[in-house]
Amino acid sequence: MTDFEIRRATADDIPAIVAMLADDPLGAQRESPDDPAPYRAAFERLARDPNQHLVVAVRDGRTVGTLQLTVVPGLSRRGATRSIIEGVRIHADERGNGLGTVLIEWAVEESRRQGCVLVQLTSDASRTDARRFYERLGFEASHVGFKLPLDG
Amino acid sequence: MTDFEIRRATADDIPAIVAMLADDPLGAQRESPDDPAPYRAAFERLARDPNQHLVVAVRDGRTVGTLQLTVVPGLSRRGATRSIIEGVRIHADERGNGLGTVLIEWAVEESRRQGCVLVQLTSDASRTDARRFYERLGFEASHVGFKLPLDG
Repeated sequence: MTDFEIRRATADDIPAIVAMLADDPLGAQRESPDDPAPYRAAFERLARDPNQHLVVAVRDGRTVGTLQLTVVPGLSRRGATRSIIEGVRIHADERGNGLGTVLIEWAVEESRRQGCVLVQLTSDASRTDARRFYERLGFEASHVGFKLPLDG
Repeated sequence: MTDFEIRRATADDIPAIVAMLADDPLGAQRESPDDPAPYRAAFERLARDPNQHLVVAVRDGRTVGTLQLTVVPGLSRRGATRSIIEGVRIHADERGNGLGTVLIEWAVEESRRQGCVLVQLTSDASRTDARRFYERLGFEASHVGFKLPLDG
């Protein structure tokens, strides 16, 4: 259950991360695993930003999970720093093994270490089991999440 | 209607921004306008971060609106950069004058300029008119927003 290592992603992890992003009902339409260039460029940008923490979970040498944690300073709530979790993915072979919990607990602990007073994330309303999952981990579904896609 | 200037916030804007954060049903319980130190520290951190854009709207020399735009690179959606809007506040005297629209349109335009393909934000479910406001501006309420407060 806890024999996963969670560590900062390296460039070598990009193909495994992209494969997980694409292996998803929503991601299948949005990703292009055969064209690595935009992913490599984005990885370089993440790696240079001290407020970005892209991590992977590894078991037996296989990259089987990922998430991105962004640390966001701000004035509201008495100058509170918050964190935002994005891009949580678990390899299909590892779902139901508790890895999602391990990854989110890592993100919460790292947020605390970074001085955050709040962790937040949004989940597509069509991901019906996500709500139970996050509520079990103590999150409150208190907000409505809005998105506006921009055309090229 | 459009006689607002939107510009990057300076340290001199902090008291006006904090007053707007506090003058709000939710903010009243969360802010401490009489203790400027944590706000000044947070402002310094925002000012140093090239992915943070804290702006104010000014009319006739008065700071009457604010929002924070965070640019977030990432691997998902083919290495897409997205932006996140937080801390949107309009001075009580200026509500209903179209300033909210001007501010959000500024944030969308700046996001485009920064190469973002998606703008996102969350709004407390108790802010019932926010939903109509954002939908009118083209946002889709497609997500559930989760928050986990961390104790000290």
